[in-house]
Amino acid sequence: MNGYGKNKEEVQRRLRRIEGQIRGLQKMVDDDRYCIDVLTQISSATRALQGVALSLLDDHLRHCVSDAIASSSADADDKLTEATAAVARLLKS
Amino acid sequence: MNGYGKNKEEVQRRLRRIEGQIRGLQKMVDDDRYCIDVLTQISSATRALQGVALSLLDDHLRHCVSDAIASSSADADDKLTEATAAVARLLKS
Amino acid sequence: MNGYGKNKEEVQRRLRRIEGQIRGLQKMVDDDRYCIDVLTQISSATRALQGVALSLLDDHLRHCVSDAIASSSADADDKLTEATAAVARLLKS
Amino acid sequence: MNGYGKNKEEVQRRLRRIEGQIRGLQKMVDDDRYCIDVLTQISSATRALQGVALSLLDDHLRHCVSDAIASSSADADDKLTEATAAVARLLKS
Repeated sequence: MNGYGKNKEEVQRRLRRIEGQIRGLQKMVDDDRYCIDVLTQISSATRALQGVALSLLDDHLRHCVSDAIASSSADADDKLTEATAAVARLLKS
Repeated sequence: MNGYGKNKEEVQRRLRRIEGQIRGLQKMVDDDRYCIDVLTQISSATRALQGVALSLLDDHLRHCVSDAIASSSADADDKLTEATAAVARLLKS
Repeated sequence: MNGYGKNKEEVQRRLRRIEGQIRGLQKMVDDDRYCIDVLTQISSATRALQGVALSLLDDHLRHCVSDAIASSSADADDKLTEATAAVARLLKS
Repeated sequence: MNGYGKNKEEVQRRLRRIEGQIRGLQKMVDDDRYCIDVLTQISSATRALQGVALSLLDDHLRHCVSDAIASSSADADDKLTEATAAVARLLKS
């Protein structure tokens, strides 16, 4: 059903850490921390989010897309179009 | 001390919404949602984070950097170097 | 050997247009055009380059990677690792 | 009139090198080089373009924007809005 099944624990661990970073950002703003320090922390959270995205994309290609191709599934083409569109969204974000 | 003072409420509101998006991501992963849907949500959270960064950058240039320049502060140059470095980090993230 | 064979003409056409944009940038700088206008043109060229990258990535997944998977090639795993690494480089650039 | 006057030679040198990279990309495609190698070269050209953008942005803030602020010019606010919008375009590209 999805490709990240085996890495679910790791993905959740990373998302919880990112949630902590976002709460840390709120604390920094509450404490009137210097703009540049807040921006540095935002860059760090963004990088961490992109890291999760890359890990999910890798799992998706390795499992969902690969399975569709290996079984000559009719939707292999759609899955590839969908994957490239997801990369396009990541690049624009 | 910092440039986002006047927009603090708005920044906090956006950060809380992003925190909600990150928790939503954890729920999606818990529910074994389809990889591409999780990736779409990550792109959305990333874009939201970049939006906060742009707002903070705008405030920083408009207040901290402008004040340093207007008062011919000795650290105006350093502030500009620091601002460009922050943009470089955002571009790489 | 490569995945973009069928789209080679189109890829070349896009690259020539980007080359034209880069030469246009040199002309703008020669003419002392306003910084922001030059920056807008750089964003446009960058977007065009990313568009070519997405097209090549789509072809690569659809041909090179798909063929390796469909033929149960021993290097299918390596090809997937390589593809994710290429996306990671695009995201960082 | 523009902020990059003093660095014009350096900006042109970098743009010429990027033009060379784009022509190198066309040669790679002509030679049917492997997709991933072409993608790596595109990432490199994109990074180089972003580097020029950062340099122009730095010059713009340091000269055009700083001058408008220092002279309490009526358009200092517009210049800052414009600069943030340029950064937003870079982030999206």
